[in-house]
Amino acid sequence: MNLLQTINNPADLRKLPRHQLAPLANELRSFLLDSVSKTGGHLSSNLGTVELTVALHYVFNTPHDRIVWDVGHQTYTHKILTGRRDQFHTLRQLDGISGFPRRVESEYDTFGTAHSSTSISAALGMALAAKIKGEQRHAIAVIGDGSMTAGMAFEALNNAGVEEDCNLLVILNDNDMSISPPVGALNRYLARLMSGQFYAAAKNVGKSVLPAPMLELAKKLEEHAKGMVVPATMFEEFGFNYIGPIDGHDLDSLIPTLQNIRNLKGPQFLHVVTKKGQGYKLAEAEPILYHGTGKFNPAEGIKPATAPAKMTYTEVFGNWLCDMAAQDERLVGITPAMREGSGMVRFHAEYPKRYFDVGIAEQHSVTFAGGLACEGMKPVVAIYSTFLQRAYDQLIHDVALQNLDVTFALDRAGLVGADGATHAGNYDLAYLRCIPNMVVMAASDENECRQMLTTAYQYPGPAAVRYPRGAGIGAAIAPELTTIDLGKGELRRQGERVAIMAFGAMVAPSLKAADGINATVANMRFVKPLDVELVKELAASHDYLVTVEEGCTMGGAGAAVAEALAEAGIAKPLLILGLPDQFIDHGDPAKLLASVGLDADGIARSIKTRFFGGEPRLVVNNG
Amino acid sequence: MNLLQTINNPADLRKLPRHQLAPLANELRSFLLDSVSKTGGHLSSNLGTVELTVALHYVFNTPHDRIVWDVGHQTYTHKILTGRRDQFHTLRQLDGISGFPRRVESEYDTFGTAHSSTSISAALGMALAAKIKGEQRHAIAVIGDGSMTAGMAFEALNNAGVEEDCNLLVILNDNDMSISPPVGALNRYLARLMSGQFYAAAKNVGKSVLPAPMLELAKKLEEHAKGMVVPATMFEEFGFNYIGPIDGHDLDSLIPTLQNIRNLKGPQFLHVVTKKGQGYKLAEAEPILYHGTGKFNPAEGIKPATAPAKMTYTEVFGNWLCDMAAQDERLVGITPAMREGSGMVRFHAEYPKRYFDVGIAEQHSVTFAGGLACEGMKPVVAIYSTFLQRAYDQLIHDVALQNLDVTFALDRAGLVGADGATHAGNYDLAYLRCIPNMVVMAASDENECRQMLTTAYQYPGPAAVRYPRGAGIGAAIAPELTTIDLGKGELRRQGERVAIMAFGAMVAPSLKAADGINATVANMRFVKPLDVELVKELAASHDYLVTVEEGCTMGGAGAAVAEALAEAGIAKPLLILGLPDQFIDHGDPAKLLASVGLDADGIARSIKTRFFGGEPRLVVNNG
Repeated sequence: MNLLQTINNPADLRKLPRHQLAPLANELRSFLLDSVSKTGGHLSSNLGTVELTVALHYVFNTPHDRIVWDVGHQTYTHKILTGRRDQFHTLRQLDGISGFPRRVESEYDTFGTAHSSTSISAALGMALAAKIKGEQRHAIAVIGDGSMTAGMAFEALNNAGVEEDCNLLVILNDNDMSISPPVGALNRYLARLMSGQFYAAAKNVGKSVLPAPMLELAKKLEEHAKGMVVPATMFEEFGFNYIGPIDGHDLDSLIPTLQNIRNLKGPQFLHVVTKKGQGYKLAEAEPILYHGTGKFNPAEGIKPATAPAKMTYTEVFGNWLCDMAAQDERLVGITPAMREGSGMVRFHAEYPKRYFDVGIAEQHSVTFAGGLACEGMKPVVAIYSTFLQRAYDQLIHDVALQNLDVTFALDRAGLVGADGATHAGNYDLAYLRCIPNMVVMAASDENECRQMLTTAYQYPGPAAVRYPRGAGIGAAIAPELTTIDLGKGELRRQGERVAIMAFGAMVAPSLKAADGINATVANMRFVKPLDVELVKELAASHDYLVTVEEGCTMGGAGAAVAEALAEAGIAKPLLILGLPDQFIDHGDPAKLLASVGLDADGIARSIKTRFFGGEPRLVVNNG
Repeated sequence: MNLLQTINNPADLRKLPRHQLAPLANELRSFLLDSVSKTGGHLSSNLGTVELTVALHYVFNTPHDRIVWDVGHQTYTHKILTGRRDQFHTLRQLDGISGFPRRVESEYDTFGTAHSSTSISAALGMALAAKIKGEQRHAIAVIGDGSMTAGMAFEALNNAGVEEDCNLLVILNDNDMSISPPVGALNRYLARLMSGQFYAAAKNVGKSVLPAPMLELAKKLEEHAKGMVVPATMFEEFGFNYIGPIDGHDLDSLIPTLQNIRNLKGPQFLHVVTKKGQGYKLAEAEPILYHGTGKFNPAEGIKPATAPAKMTYTEVFGNWLCDMAAQDERLVGITPAMREGSGMVRFHAEYPKRYFDVGIAEQHSVTFAGGLACEGMKPVVAIYSTFLQRAYDQLIHDVALQNLDVTFALDRAGLVGADGATHAGNYDLAYLRCIPNMVVMAASDENECRQMLTTAYQYPGPAAVRYPRGAGIGAAIAPELTTIDLGKGELRRQGERVAIMAFGAMVAPSLKAADGINATVANMRFVKPLDVELVKELAASHDYLVTVEEGCTMGGAGAAVAEALAEAGIAKPLLILGLPDQFIDHGDPAKLLASVGLDADGIARSIKTRFFGGEPRLVVNNG
């Protein structure tokens, strides 16, 4: 690590002679493997972008020139080179550095990313700002081939391609995968581009990749067509100057190419080919396994867990999906490029004709489900809570408005831990329950999750089941596919004076909290339709009402209870517990929940403080 | 109208001999012009799709074959031919037929549309459902060139292009415009395609559009490339069989082409060129003016209003934008293809370098604004409430999470009248206020709208101002650019016992309602941050609290007040008035508001019923 120790910022890097960059890249790769295997994190993608990152900071004048990293999980080398080497061991940990770029973390992190396909839009904004302000500045978006399948990347290309005098460089980091295996026509197209079958590439690369007679013909065609548009790559058709493909691990290709591009005007598109996991054989062989890792021994690689871990909610969903598909041939499963994360590997294997990975295309995934539902199929869209935000209009306009029968399995609801605020599923209860026709459930344990999925599936309209990231409480799962009553909660503990209405994952800590204060606890199950009768009963038989949810309190489940009380004409003290109105950083999920008072202790403490502590805060209406 | 009178459904149409279709098209065009000039509605686009619609229903076996009309404002001919000729005079009126396709209205309306770019996704779902079910059925998406710029259309193309054995036909209705003039690289590309400069087209059209020597070369190239990929149109690169461009007003081209396509397997892409306003000279000359019309005399055309109409909120925004731009050169204005609708024509003319029409690309528009904000520009995104749903994740993840300084001008908040449920801006208060860092305001009159826009602009983070469609109450507008206090409402009427907390457009009817019952009225101004002090004061000095908003009650402004009361430990009777939890159809806005009790009479009636009427519904807590 002799070289790496001397690099405290990109200015240091730019002082190095060219021949030292390759050894530096080797050091970086060792550093990455060593560090990520201790902290966990994204490995494959970062091993794949070492040389590209070195080359970018070497050639461009960062931070004056702006680099926007799409998704941003591939920015570890960037972080190490931009002053965060010595904090790198704190990656993704509470109060440590984030696994994604963050503007508050470094001036080199020009734009916070984590959801895919935003980089071209942001970099175009930066490039046009520079143009308006008369500043000489390059704006660079680094985007993977997976991210290119999302519509907003195309929206940005469409907009950028006509901005002929802006200094925008889009670098397509083509490693032939998103997290799940590649899908879609664009991927196939890129594969053709890479195999050199487009004579247009001959214009741009040093030596022709085409057989000589073909090249000859192409030249003639071009001459003949003088002033006419010559068929070219899709990116040229969008108005970009297309360069590539070049080897993204070869600094001797990367650096001169980037130096040349630096002098070109207008929107540039550089196609770089890299390999996920590059330099670590195990990750090269299984890039999906090494996409996001826990701790492991680099010499041995990731080992299968010896003791069977507690089942995750994702697995509960995956098993349910297969079981339901076995019963009902109308079932189709849809994922926007999250086969692994959503637990659909087995379903894909067992029901390949009813499995649809539509690419990173949340918007399309939901409307596509709507189309299937119109024809009597029963689509299940498996999507993270945070990514459903991408398909919000489609959910409202294409599904809910037409009351179509689509089931939404919302994974990663609530805080997600190491991925942080960008991936938090904190808003779904609020943004879903305001939509007419929606049914919204929150699962309190694994068995109930399965029951709720069945209930949502049998419900002949749009219904969502949310469940948290990771393992549940270890509830036994009944093999049957049973439903629960629509809009009915259940009493879980009879106490007195205080009634806690708990939603989803907050039922367990609420029960624990209730023991110490002898409170009643209801598992509300439904955020919509809310069990208004149960709310009224609890209000009538208790002095104090409490709601607890792992979601934003603004407009969430607690608000639903408050509305129901108002509607019923019940004026009663109500304590609404949930996530505060702020973005919550990454860290250990249990610690994060405790920090916002959503563990058993915190819930009990809040109740005592509010209803049994200090000065009386309660104003009683006698009007 | 002899022919048209005989057509009660497409089966009747299919009985006609071919030579009668052109006269029928003429009758349809007259019928459309006559009817729309009496009811108002979309004219240009419907005049442009008469022949295409006739040809589709003539060639395909509807409703067994599915036609999905993108946006759906061009479906008037479709409606007339599918059994709704005699109801056509009720277009867009209360209890009349919708201006868009609706599944509940007709079995021929296979998918409800109104927001753009959903058709390929939905039709692909239908095509794959047919494949899974083993049904022989065509699914056809008819999409305009404007709609093709939205990302989700590309997501769908990307997904569809690899489904080699599905019967999907995408018809690009290329009329060189969305509502606003065309923008972006795709439009430029389509223009090149249409000008016949792609030799690939020679493969598909009957007679070559290329000069002979060029065609010769192209043929040689193709022969030589045997088995290799030949440069082709972008749509072929996406895996579609591209056919066209053909004249969309020439039934002799349309019908044989569609008949041929009917026999082809796999994803087909037909490029049809039409003219908006075709057959009505005035609309051909000014298609934007005749895009959506009120009533007019077809012989005279649309006349400029003689008496100056009351200023609309859209105009208030447009004037504010120009005035603020004059003061602050950092201001940039962004519209996703809604220059006219959002009132930005003058701004575009006066500040062309700071005006960005990004195409129908809501997602990109918001992240693009984020990129501009990072560089110290002050972006103002003008967007309809209903369309911001398309950019919800971008608002959360790219703007609010980074606390970037972006102003959102939300037009068409609340009910929108003739456009109906698809365009209703009913959810923004709920879906915005749950997001940390957001400031959310609702304007009660024109002058306040201007003040709020200035306040949002000066606020150094993300802030939204919502205002309704159409004219306000006629308030005098002060020319200064003044701000209001952040998070502060104002008392507008001092009454007793009942305190009405009104938001935005509901302030005026609340004041009127208050007169009869001597209620206090506050103009709350801010939904977030809510004026909690004012809420507490009103609660302390009144017996009954009421909230009124033109938005969904679930999670909206009333819920915010309920949460604030709970948080403050105030248990007080609260009546939450707003839009009910259902999708509300098209119709006259005033009548619609009255129908849900949001006019002055309705507000007063609700208050009397709840607090001063019938049996006591109020449960008072003494615990």
